Amino acid sequence: MAVTLKDVALRAGVSRSAVSRTFTEGASVSDKTRAKVTKAANELGYRPNALASSLTTGRTKLIGLVSDNFHNPIFLEVFDLFTQGLQERGLRPLLVNLSQQKDREQALNLLRQYSVDGVIVASSTLPPSFAKSFREAGMPVVNSFGRHTTSPDVHVVGIDNVECGRMAAHALIKRGYRKIAFMGGPEKATSTQDRLSGFLEVVRGTPGVSQTHSFADAYSFKAGREEMACLISDGPAEAYFCGDDVLSIGALSAIQSAGLTTPTDIGLIGLNDMEMAGWDNIALTTIHQPIQQIIASSIELVTAMLDDPERYPEARLFPCHIVERGTLRGT
Amino acid sequence: MAVTLKDVALRAGVSRSAVSRTFTEGASVSDKTRAKVTKAANELGYRPNALASSLTTGRTKLIGLVSDNFHNPIFLEVFDLFTQGLQERGLRPLLVNLSQQKDREQALNLLRQYSVDGVIVASSTLPPSFAKSFREAGMPVVNSFGRHTTSPDVHVVGIDNVECGRMAAHALIKRGYRKIAFMGGPEKATSTQDRLSGFLEVVRGTPGVSQTHSFADAYSFKAGREEMACLISDGPAEAYFCGDDVLSIGALSAIQSAGLTTPTDIGLIGLNDMEMAGWDNIALTTIHQPIQQIIASSIELVTAMLDDPERYPEARLFPCHIVERGTLRGT
Repeated sequence: MAVTLKDVALRAGVSRSAVSRTFTEGASVSDKTRAKVTKAANELGYRPNALASSLTTGRTKLIGLVSDNFHNPIFLEVFDLFTQGLQERGLRPLLVNLSQQKDREQALNLLRQYSVDGVIVASSTLPPSFAKSFREAGMPVVNSFGRHTTSPDVHVVGIDNVECGRMAAHALIKRGYRKIAFMGGPEKATSTQDRLSGFLEVVRGTPGVSQTHSFADAYSFKAGREEMACLISDGPAEAYFCGDDVLSIGALSAIQSAGLTTPTDIGLIGLNDMEMAGWDNIALTTIHQPIQQIIASSIELVTAMLDDPERYPEARLFPCHIVERGTLRGT
Repeated sequence: MAVTLKDVALRAGVSRSAVSRTFTEGASVSDKTRAKVTKAANELGYRPNALASSLTTGRTKLIGLVSDNFHNPIFLEVFDLFTQGLQERGLRPLLVNLSQQKDREQALNLLRQYSVDGVIVASSTLPPSFAKSFREAGMPVVNSFGRHTTSPDVHVVGIDNVECGRMAAHALIKRGYRKIAFMGGPEKATSTQDRLSGFLEVVRGTPGVSQTHSFADAYSFKAGREEMACLISDGPAEAYFCGDDVLSIGALSAIQSAGLTTPTDIGLIGLNDMEMAGWDNIALTTIHQPIQQIIASSIELVTAMLDDPERYPEARLFPCHIVERGTLRGT
């Protein structure tokens, strides 16, 4: 026979409410009471079942967290902030790794199967149609780090990547670089396309400045290193806007291996401002993307949709700024 | 009225089995059929419910994945391998972040509440009693990267950290270093204690070699950098065994900032062989920990416990080896 909450309360010598509070995240209960309840629950083999209760409430408190990049250190920070933020609200992240599994429809079906309350697609490389497919399947969804459009199909929280491209071009030109370049992430990623488009807009409007651009295969160290090695052997530009920080760090490695130095021989600016960009043996000048604000806002939106699944989709954009370190010469 | 599998089959014009296979991970179904089923499911608002069926089967296919370190890049590799490995078996990782939440009993209660089929504690710093508490609460548990003992209370999968300490000391001595040191992770972590003990054992058995040891506050870049900066200002040893790779990279940063070079002024050997250790601008000589094998074996054990929850606890240890790069002088 199933052990009930009442059985645990009797054995622990506490109220039923005390038992309930012990198993409710964020609820107030003294350490002493919690210890008594846990001991009694262990002895009786009691298992409070959030999932059984979900059948009546229609809520599982599970949030699908979908990512397709486990080779970019920025995602460790992203997972840290998402898991902490969700936990604080009594929600649980069900992590879905799409880095190998290319069948996105299967991912959708799996999250559906687990009756997740909502889905956060944390990616700037998955196509917008991917996040949209969750909405079509009736699942609340937020696309964090996704493309901003004037007519979003789903909630998008992130930055204005076109503006970041402009910002990078202005920064390079202001420092006197005249032969500049964009070394982007994957060509198909909307983040790459948008950063390039802002970059080109500024270069084309500035007489005396020329540009080239190319793409790395992925947002990864390896791809950044390989692409920069090719660029160097072809004759490098004076300075590069690299698609993100991990590409920049790969590029730095290729620059060092070629016996060149930064910023003397080649200037570099990245994007993200991940923890590692501030490490003293990297010291990357980069565009800071406010990931804390983006993630807090994404969680806020997905939570709001639990009460209002038909909520009108919105785009929330956060401003970026340049963090000066050691990879661009002074103005 | 709830939409059933039969409704979806009728609308899609396929068999019920085809609908069922579409929503079962790993089951074979043609792309064409899957597309038809997904379309019909979307139109009808069908939600296959793995959680409802868990009430009859007693299985949720959820595995709690508990970590307390989101500042060590090795954990991105760990999460990648765990999520892929679990997904391949139709299991889903429920990620629990203990980096802030110090109340471990609360973590236990939460995973109990979600009726996870099993728990993987992926940490070398959480005390063995933590993993044990899951077993006491009747939950199958594996402690990955945990301490090996001759009488394990729970399954432990990892490496022999004492042997790694010996291996590091031998490597330093073999290269002619005579004044050597251990710069460990947190003093309370069993991994730190065990690596130190093996290191001391060898030094004490080798005439003419002296050692010092100290501890960083965490397995993080910042802690490694701070500790090495102190060691340098006190007068550094000839070579260090650093507790792990991220500490080593922090130490390298402090060495460079002090105007010193590796291996000329100070030798370094790390532990883990995470992806970043092989980056050309780091090129860390380190002890390779076979995390792929450790994670595959952890998943195997937790899966085996689903069928046999009382399975006798075992320790599975995987051998390590040194990867030579650029931070130790030649033999």
